[in-house]
Formats: sequence, C-alpha cells, structure tokens
Amino acid sequence: VSAAEQAAQHLEIAVIPGDGIGPEVITEARKVLDVAAEASGATVAYTEYPLGVQHWLATGETLSEETLQQLRGHDAILFGAVGADPQDTRVPSGLIERELLLKLRFSLDHCVNLRPARTYPGVQTPLVADAPIDFVVVREGTEGPYVGNGGSIRKGTSQEIATEVSLNTAYGVQRVVEDAFVRAQGRSKKLTLVHKHNVLVHAGDLWRRAVEEAAPSYPDVTWDYMHVDAATIHMVTHPGRFDVIVTDNLFGDILTDLAGAVTGGIGLAASGSINATGDAPSMFEPVHGSAPDIAGQGIADPTAAILSAALMLDHLGLSTAAEQIERAVHIQLSQWAAEASGSLSTAQRGDAYVQQLRRVVA
Amino acid sequence: VSAAEQAAQHLEIAVIPGDGIGPEVITEARKVLDVAAEASGATVAYTEYPLGVQHWLATGETLSEETLQQLRGHDAILFGAVGADPQDTRVPSGLIERELLLKLRFSLDHCVNLRPARTYPGVQTPLVADAPIDFVVVREGTEGPYVGNGGSIRKGTSQEIATEVSLNTAYGVQRVVEDAFVRAQGRSKKLTLVHKHNVLVHAGDLWRRAVEEAAPSYPDVTWDYMHVDAATIHMVTHPGRFDVIVTDNLFGDILTDLAGAVTGGIGLAASGSINATGDAPSMFEPVHGSAPDIAGQGIADPTAAILSAALMLDHLGLSTAAEQIERAVHIQLSQWAAEASGSLSTAQRGDAYVQQLRRVVA
Ligand SMILES: CC(C)[C@H](C(=O)O)[C@@H](O)C(=O)O
Ligand SMILES: CC(C)[C@H](C(=O)O)[C@@H](O)C(=O)O
Repeated sequence: VSAAEQAAQHLEIAVIPGDGIGPEVITEARKVLDVAAEASGATVAYTEYPLGVQHWLATGETLSEETLQQLRGHDAILFGAVGADPQDTRVPSGLIERELLLKLRFSLDHCVNLRPARTYPGVQTPLVADAPIDFVVVREGTEGPYVGNGGSIRKGTSQEIATEVSLNTAYGVQRVVEDAFVRAQGRSKKLTLVHKHNVLVHAGDLWRRAVEEAAPSYPDVTWDYMHVDAATIHMVTHPGRFDVIVTDNLFGDILTDLAGAVTGGIGLAASGSINATGDAPSMFEPVHGSAPDIAGQGIADPTAAILSAALMLDHLGLSTAAEQIERAVHIQLSQWAAEASGSLSTAQRGDAYVQQLRRVVA
Repeated sequence: VSAAEQAAQHLEIAVIPGDGIGPEVITEARKVLDVAAEASGATVAYTEYPLGVQHWLATGETLSEETLQQLRGHDAILFGAVGADPQDTRVPSGLIERELLLKLRFSLDHCVNLRPARTYPGVQTPLVADAPIDFVVVREGTEGPYVGNGGSIRKGTSQEIATEVSLNTAYGVQRVVEDAFVRAQGRSKKLTLVHKHNVLVHAGDLWRRAVEEAAPSYPDVTWDYMHVDAATIHMVTHPGRFDVIVTDNLFGDILTDLAGAVTGGIGLAASGSINATGDAPSMFEPVHGSAPDIAGQGIADPTAAILSAALMLDHLGLSTAAEQIERAVHIQLSQWAAEASGSLSTAQRGDAYVQQLRRVVA
C-alpha cells in the first residue's frame, strides 16, 4: 500500500445520480465501489445530490452556488447522467447540460477530460478487423468552443448573424498537453495531437506549439499530428495505432463518442473530468447519457458507471482497488461471452461484477 | 434528352489537376468524361490550370485574381487534389489548402458542399454489419468556423490567447437547408440536421430554426435532429438510417471523412462544391487528398475522381450521362469483386471503366 493509498483511507464522495438511467447505473457502481474500497482498507461516505432535470422541474435549481460550495467539500464526484426526454417540451434543450454538467466542469476547473477507449473480452465491436483497441483521449475540458462565448444579432430576421467563439489559452492548452505527455509515458509512449490547424490556424498553431515545446521534456514519447477529419478515418480503419490522443474540447467530444462506438458501445465508456491541481474535486461519469428511452426498465448496462468509479479510485490514489475493479470487469465480461448469456438486468450485472470482484480481492 | 441537356451541349471545363495523385486520377476522369459526354451528344473543352504546391513553389502564385477571373468563365471546375508532402518544409502547413482550395470555395460562393456516401458492390466496408449505405451530406461551404475569423494576442508567451470565430448567417444557413430539403425530396425524403446546439447555442439555434421554418414547404420530407457526437456513433452502428444530412462546414468536414471510411474508403468518395445560383462555376473533386506517399507510382484509385466527374455532369444537366458513369462504375466494381482481381494500376482501372461505359451507352 503506497503512501497515497494510506492517505486516502476515508473517501467523501458526492454522488449525482441524475436523470433517466443515471440512478440505475450509479446504484451498481456504488455496490462495486464499496467492495473495492473495503478490500483496500478504505471507507467511503456518500452524499447524494438530487440534481438534474427532475430536480430542476421540482425546485427550479440547476446548480446553485450553495450546492456548488457543498460539492467542493468532497474528495470526488460520481456522476450518473443528466438530460431530459427530448419529447419533454417543459425542458429547454441543452439547459441542464449547460447549467449543470458544463457548469460543474468549468466551475471546478476540470481541465482534463479523460476518456479511455478499449476493447473488452467478448464485447463485439462493429469493426470487421476486431483487433484490440486501447487508447485514451485527453480532451481539454474548460476552453475551446465550449466557453459559451457567442451571440446573435437581428435574431429571427433574414439578416441574422450568429457567432460562436472558440477561446484557447496557452495556460489552458499547455496544462492539458503536459498531462497527456505524462500519461503517454505511463503507457505506450505515443502521443497524437488531433486538431484542424490547416483551417483553425490560430488555435491550431497554439496547440501545435504547446506540443512541440513540451516534447523535449518527454524524450521517450514520440508524437505525431493528425487532422480531426483524418482521425475519424483512422479510428475506423486502424484504431489500434492510437495510444494517447490530446485534443480540444469539441474535437474530443466528437472523437470520444466515435471511440465508444468502435470499441463496442458507449455502454462501456468511462470518463473522468480532472481538476489537475486538486483545488476542487474531480468528477467521474459514464460517457453515455440519461437514455430516457430505456429508463425505469432496469436494463441499462452499468459497466461504464462501474469503470468510471474505478477511474475515480485510481485518481484518488487507490490504484490497486481500481485495477481490481478493471480485472473483475474483464473476467466477468469474458465469462458472459463464453456463456453466451442472454440479456441481463442492470442489477444482475452489478451483482455479478461484485461477486467477481470479491474473488479478485480475496 | 431534356431541355437542360440540350442547352448544355458544349461544356467548357476548367481542370485543376493539382499535386500528388491529383493529375493521375484526373487523367482517368477525363477519359471517362469524354466517352459519357460524347454519348450524350455533348462536347467538352478542357482548360488546364497548373495550380497547386508545385506551381506555388515555381511561381509564388497560389490563386491570383487573374486566374480566378479566368476560372469564372468556365461551366464547371474539375479538381484533383492539392497539398504538399508533410515532410516538405518549404511549404507552410495549410497554405495551399487555404489560399487555393478554400479560396475557390469562398470566392465562387460554393455554399453547398455535396458529399454522397454509399457502398458499392464488392467494395468491402470496415463494418461487420455490411448493410447498404446510401446517404448524402449537404455540408455548408462558405461559413462556420471556416471563415478565417480568428486571431491571437501575446503570441508565444504564457499569456497567449487564440480565438476562432464561427460565423453563421440566416442567408447562408437557409439556402443550404433549402437545398437539403430539395435533395431529400428527390431521395428517400428523410433529412437529419446535425449540429451541437446544446453547446453551440447561437449557431445551433439558427440552424434549428432554419430547418423548422423550411419544413412546412416540404411536407413529404420528415426530419430529425442529431448532435454531431451522436451522429458519429450512428454512422458506425447503423449508417443505413441516414438519407440526407445537412450540417455546418466543420461538422460536415468531419462527418464526410467518417462516411468515406465506413463506406469502404475515401478512394471512392466524390464531392461537389456547388454555387447555388449559377453565378459562378461549381467545382467537383474527390474527397481524398494528394496522397504524396503513393504519388507518381500510378497506383491511385481514380474512382472518386470519376464519380466526381459524374456529379459534375449531373449538375450541368447531363443527368443521363452521369447515371451512365455511375452504372459503369457499379458494373465494373462488381466484376472486379467477382474476379477477385488483384491490384490494378490507375490507368488499368480508368480504362476498364471506359470500356464498361462504352457498353452501357451502346
Ligand atoms: C451533454 C454534453 C454537453 C456533453 C459534451 O458535449 O461535453 C457530452 O456530450 C459529453 O461528451 O460529455
Ligand atoms: C483540405 C481541407 C482544407 C479541406 C476541408 O477541411 O474542407 C478537406 O479536408 C476537405 O474536406 O475538403
């Protein structure tokens, strides 16, 4: 047990189950988390925050300053999913995504949006060339076209002009690039910068210089550059070439959904929104959304939420516990594949992972 | 023969073969074009413009006002590919793309960037679910983040800020949306707007209202909306769901490369940059680039260039000739698949398409 693991023996976790399938998958993630933490000699206390669409409809709160202050007091945040049923006309489109999810990322300075993409045993991918995929996308999380810096004039007239401004700073780009290089050092030592610097000249140039200037400090890491359009091709034709991808907020959003698709479905894709200095809690969430179409049926796949909990443990210094969850998930997925098991409920899956984890930690 | 076809009996085509494999694939496209035009009773005169990286290195011209004026005098432009070898340090990255390719699109008001995506017989796709794909992306071509409206301050310092501004106008969006609805009417009557309006609120809202307001004029067309990140998932998991996609310049750039990948390679993807009023010539080009790595070897696949020539004929009112090229390509691809033919040279492929076309038009 490392010093970090000893220091992290009590975890204060904020839980935002959210909407739709969010609460369903978070229930399973907590079961698994409890077992992994206990095996590592850690204790976990959960505080639930009932944020999301339902909460907004009931109270008018998306995310108040007071709630935000309370969230800051935790070691990390475990987040389910938020989002209204698109049919629900009471909820302005994108409101909860911006006023809750993005507000959390921006307020808590989640500069690194970490999204591992990998194939799992027995999980079929949509690709003929079913080669192993194992890369991680380091998506910038607090800048780019996500800053909400746009507007419109003459709205609703034939002379309307709408703008969206992508803001990119040396400060914001460099810290993400450093993070990506460090992660590449801990992996296969290959970094790919994805941007579109032939068109987005100014932002693209800033990103390229950030990588060029950081590179000499990581002489064991080789890096290359790829335009975002070309990156989508490679992700379909030979995704195995990627190790660490570093990219901006919007390109990262697009590429990680694609990565989820080519690795066998976003039911498996985990993510962490990382505060790099530790000034505020980082947040861990499945990449999938609230899936209102299957909510309430108990059939959502909790794997992405469980793997997000593992990312959280790793971030909090409990790397052994994190690896144990990863291992249990691997073993259980292989087993289901061998059994050609039919459709399982959310709880059945969660319970199976828990049992598997108990064996792993024994 | 329709009135349009009679009026279009003599075609003045500007040809920009460009760099790398550009000239190689354009040679084959011209062979096929000649046969198709002749069979339709049309004549074609070609004027070659030696633009591209080599021309810039030799003369310093990317695209002069004078050349642009000359190009305006033609009925259409057939474009190969431009772009330097990334290793060639004499050529500033993106220079020729911006100063030639994008300058043409912007100067000639190519508002609709039309990119069909379809599977072809015998062409293997990277997807397990090898179902037919047949959709077309109507990509906006003169606005969005492509306008070059960005800048930076304190460049090279730790306080650098770089911006990129996406400009979107009712004028620019509405004309593209209209075009997409009309194309949907001529196809399976299903339009999908792709954007990211939960984050890019102002531009996204303009696009959504443009579609909502146009929709009643096309009551036979059903439409839906998809976020760009989700669209990449659907393009991999069930691309057959798409008929016509309408989207902005950058999202269209990304999605059409992905579409090329999932349909079996961008060696087949054709495109047209359309001037909607006819005030200036439209331009037709393969989606693939200049591929410096295989240039000069005579092994590039000319299919995308040939299908681009077909798009050009269709645009110029020679729809029968266009269909005949499409048909010849289909038949020939099926034949190669049945023969399990090995690797063919660029010219062998071109000649085979010509022979096949002769049979089709006979
Ligand atoms: C819901 C949305 C605002 C969000 C994003 O665009 O970042 C989501 O797509 C994601 O990837 O986490
Ligand atoms: C070369 C580049 C500027 C261009 C674009 O981004 O539009 C290309 O990728 C394309 O899709 O035609």
